[in-house]
Amino acid sequence: MNAEEVKKEIRDVVDFPIKGIIFRDLTTAFKNPECMRFFENEMYELYKDKGITKVVGIESRGFIMAPVLANKIGAGFVPIRKKGKLPAETIDMSYAKEYGEDTIQIHKDALDADDVVLLHDDLLATGGTMKAACDLVKKFGVKKIYVNFLVELDDLYGRDVFESGIEVSSLLHY
Amino acid sequence: MNAEEVKKEIRDVVDFPIKGIIFRDLTTAFKNPECMRFFENEMYELYKDKGITKVVGIESRGFIMAPVLANKIGAGFVPIRKKGKLPAETIDMSYAKEYGEDTIQIHKDALDADDVVLLHDDLLATGGTMKAACDLVKKFGVKKIYVNFLVELDDLYGRDVFESGIEVSSLLHY
Repeated sequence: MNAEEVKKEIRDVVDFPIKGIIFRDLTTAFKNPECMRFFENEMYELYKDKGITKVVGIESRGFIMAPVLANKIGAGFVPIRKKGKLPAETIDMSYAKEYGEDTIQIHKDALDADDVVLLHDDLLATGGTMKAACDLVKKFGVKKIYVNFLVELDDLYGRDVFESGIEVSSLLHY
Repeated sequence: MNAEEVKKEIRDVVDFPIKGIIFRDLTTAFKNPECMRFFENEMYELYKDKGITKVVGIESRGFIMAPVLANKIGAGFVPIRKKGKLPAETIDMSYAKEYGEDTIQIHKDALDADDVVLLHDDLLATGGTMKAACDLVKKFGVKKIYVNFLVELDDLYGRDVFESGIEVSSLLHY
């Protein structure tokens, strides 16, 4: 499968989660093994030579492909979760959302300064959550941060929130 | 790594989420690539010859290893999520929890009668959520259901909630 064929497997859901939004529903692609293989192979080609030691997935949909890539390249998998889900000592980051504020957390012992980190989530819209995740990971003084999405909504310019030292890649664009 | 070595990488967190519980924290194992490889290989050995067509992960921690196995055996990945997260038409299942009730959902078009399904979550305690997930999957009239956990807490007898036609396996036991 190529990118155009995979995009045909992604379902558009109108007015979810709120009126006026077209939600790009990846579940119809995930249930197709050929799409899963496409995501795995494309991510592998992008990141196989970067010396990545930890792949960080953003709860929940970022947990789906991050561990697949981690195993493929022989890296560890680290979750960033919503507040209150991680059991041990955490570092927290709050960020503004359209209505109110949200907080994400990572375990204090999840990363160290020797790590080369790939942060992954399924979809880049305005980039608020991933920007907060990058700020969390930066606190560990890691060597380098890469950011990856399966899908990017280009007309929201979400990639502009990331500073220039962070390499952002997406497999599919709308 | 063998099972005993992987168990040493799993952290015990005392009094999480509530007083008196010892929480088996898998994040310390997931960040170790050798543990990730152990989980992948053990799951593969258990399920490579079963004709599994869909691997269903239970939100959120079941999303971590379910897609890894799906890709390894060439199956699709399907999420079961908490209420309100899936964007298209769903089938719902409510079940009793220690305090109150919870509802999980699966997309109506996620499975069909030809599927052989492996349901996966990270940890088997009392089995309430996975039992509800099995009841959801049974509504599709699938050919066969397998259930897998990374960790099983044997003294809670969670596996007794599953009917005899469902094969339950766990990689590690406490």
